[in-house]
Amino acid sequence: KKILVIPGDGIGQEVTAWGQKVLQTIAVNYKHNFVFEEGIMGHVAIEATGNPLPDETLEKARKSDAILFGAIGHAKYDNDPTLKVRPEQGLLKIRKELGLYANLRPIKLFDELLEASSIKPEILRGADILFFRELTGDVYFGEKKRSEDRNTASDLMIYHRFEVERIARKAFEAARNRRKKLCSVDKANVLETSRLWREVVQEIAKEYPDVETEHMFIDNAAMQLVKDPKRFDVVLTANLFGDILTDEASQIAGSMGMLASASVGDSTGFYEPIHGSAHDIAGKGIANPLASILSAALMLDISFGLKNESLRVIKAVEATLKQGFRTMDIANKHTENHFVMGTDAMG
Amino acid sequence: KKILVIPGDGIGQEVTAWGQKVLQTIAVNYKHNFVFEEGIMGHVAIEATGNPLPDETLEKARKSDAILFGAIGHAKYDNDPTLKVRPEQGLLKIRKELGLYANLRPIKLFDELLEASSIKPEILRGADILFFRELTGDVYFGEKKRSEDRNTASDLMIYHRFEVERIARKAFEAARNRRKKLCSVDKANVLETSRLWREVVQEIAKEYPDVETEHMFIDNAAMQLVKDPKRFDVVLTANLFGDILTDEASQIAGSMGMLASASVGDSTGFYEPIHGSAHDIAGKGIANPLASILSAALMLDISFGLKNESLRVIKAVEATLKQGFRTMDIANKHTENHFVMGTDAMG
Ligand SMILES: CC(C)[C@H](C(=O)O)[C@@H](O)C(=O)O
Ligand SMILES: CC(C)[C@H](C(=O)O)[C@@H](O)C(=O)O
Repeated sequence: KKILVIPGDGIGQEVTAWGQKVLQTIAVNYKHNFVFEEGIMGHVAIEATGNPLPDETLEKARKSDAILFGAIGHAKYDNDPTLKVRPEQGLLKIRKELGLYANLRPIKLFDELLEASSIKPEILRGADILFFRELTGDVYFGEKKRSEDRNTASDLMIYHRFEVERIARKAFEAARNRRKKLCSVDKANVLETSRLWREVVQEIAKEYPDVETEHMFIDNAAMQLVKDPKRFDVVLTANLFGDILTDEASQIAGSMGMLASASVGDSTGFYEPIHGSAHDIAGKGIANPLASILSAALMLDISFGLKNESLRVIKAVEATLKQGFRTMDIANKHTENHFVMGTDAMG
Repeated sequence: KKILVIPGDGIGQEVTAWGQKVLQTIAVNYKHNFVFEEGIMGHVAIEATGNPLPDETLEKARKSDAILFGAIGHAKYDNDPTLKVRPEQGLLKIRKELGLYANLRPIKLFDELLEASSIKPEILRGADILFFRELTGDVYFGEKKRSEDRNTASDLMIYHRFEVERIARKAFEAARNRRKKLCSVDKANVLETSRLWREVVQEIAKEYPDVETEHMFIDNAAMQLVKDPKRFDVVLTANLFGDILTDEASQIAGSMGMLASASVGDSTGFYEPIHGSAHDIAGKGIANPLASILSAALMLDISFGLKNESLRVIKAVEATLKQGFRTMDIANKHTENHFVMGTDAMG
């Protein structure tokens, strides 16, 4: 199996090294042949080549069986909205080019982290949500315009029926193998794209009569996620709404530093932590490597069908937490038997 | 003072009666002359006239000094995204026609409700946020299209410089009178509208050097709001992001049933609870009237400059909560000295 590793920017560099190490260890222990290549993307790629996604990286990506990605972004661009070439363009382009239309974000709390969240333990216990975020459409990819006098800006929010259909089917299939509940999130009381979204999901739902389907407005969903996360099983939503809801949902898992995601489409799978480049803590060696390690676990499961190996990694993470090892983001100040440590020791 | 009352749909009917009663009591006790009129809007207006915002209501609105509104929406339209005439069009139209471009949503927890939230009390204690949500632009009002074969839908997300400027100024002014911190929320790493937004806010910020300004991506903001609500003072954001964040933030106030909002622009002010029509509990007499009562308090303060009268209402709400009176949404199952009651008793 050919695996492309793209650490990207900020803490991406530190944590992805650990995701890769875990894959290497699995390869040795289970006698698999994983061949690793490395690619650049984001701010580091702009610095090196002027292009956030160099052709060479895209070429390598197309030829690989799976990709382990870190993070993207840099304060320089955040502080100057007028810059034309931006790191995020690299990430958006690779998603589009590889047809990674379905972004799966499983949100599940490790029991050991019940106390790490700002939400009450009794609200969290048992919460287990699988998000399906559409990843190659929406206002992310619609035409962007700026008037000549620079006083008017627009982004086109746009969806085609087939884009909704294909991700809806994936989400319903997943719901069928879980608790058979699907909640589709939109803003159909205001947006035409959401009305199309809702129409299509209502249609596809008929093919899955065994799955209980519900439609919820995004504002309400953002509230319910905090109020009662246990009511959700599979959540299906558009690109922008999914971006917002899954970051919010990170509080259900105790920390952003724990969350992995898988982007899949028709071929190569793309695995990444949902945390970003986190400039503020980059280079300090304190980032949580578990999201990258769990991304590696998702790769083993989804791209390679290696269920046992994947479970092995998850169990190792669990055991590490059980022993009290914590990075800063998930440490509980009130507990004495937590050993707070840096990225490498945690890995 | 001429006050137009528009109860609207669902629980709007039940709760707005209480907001109005409070205004009447204040008028009597403080010897003010408030003249009330009533108008229809939303599903009830569609049923009566075919139009979600009849001209007659709009006429009355233009002639009034302030408007007390309830809620809008009905399950019939939510279940059928193909319907052309929809209740929400009434609300969007009145916002646009009256130029209500700034929606203020204060989020503050009454101490008595510390336990009503799903968030831990120690995270919540002291949280006090004032949201400025832009209300007459964004993807809400940009052109909506559906292709002839109905397979493609789009909504135009669009902002003009002056729209960002005027709400930014209002938000900075408010920050100056509070803890002098402003957080502007956007998605400038992806959206051109957000880049315009960020540029303009950066410019206006220079006029307010005494206010500490920060820019945050919407995904991160949705997370931080749950993780550490105390870090926010004034939050400034666009229409869609504001819709999502303020509903989410309702968990900081214990319940959606507690939150009031003021929409202001160049003339008439418009006051409404942020909760919706809540079809599921409408007509049962169990809705929380406090958001409507607090909306009335906002009206007294913002539209009429009656600070004392406004405070009097807020104190009455506080006292009611202190005595243990609760509607269902804010009752704590584990506390014995809560008296759970219906809308009218609570009022
Ligand atoms: C970096 C950014 C473009 C990206 C997104 O918004 O999709 C990130 O927030 C994510 O969720 O993967
Ligand atoms: C009813 C709906 C159109 C409205 C909105 O999205 O603005 C509501 O959610 C609100 O927040 O006032």
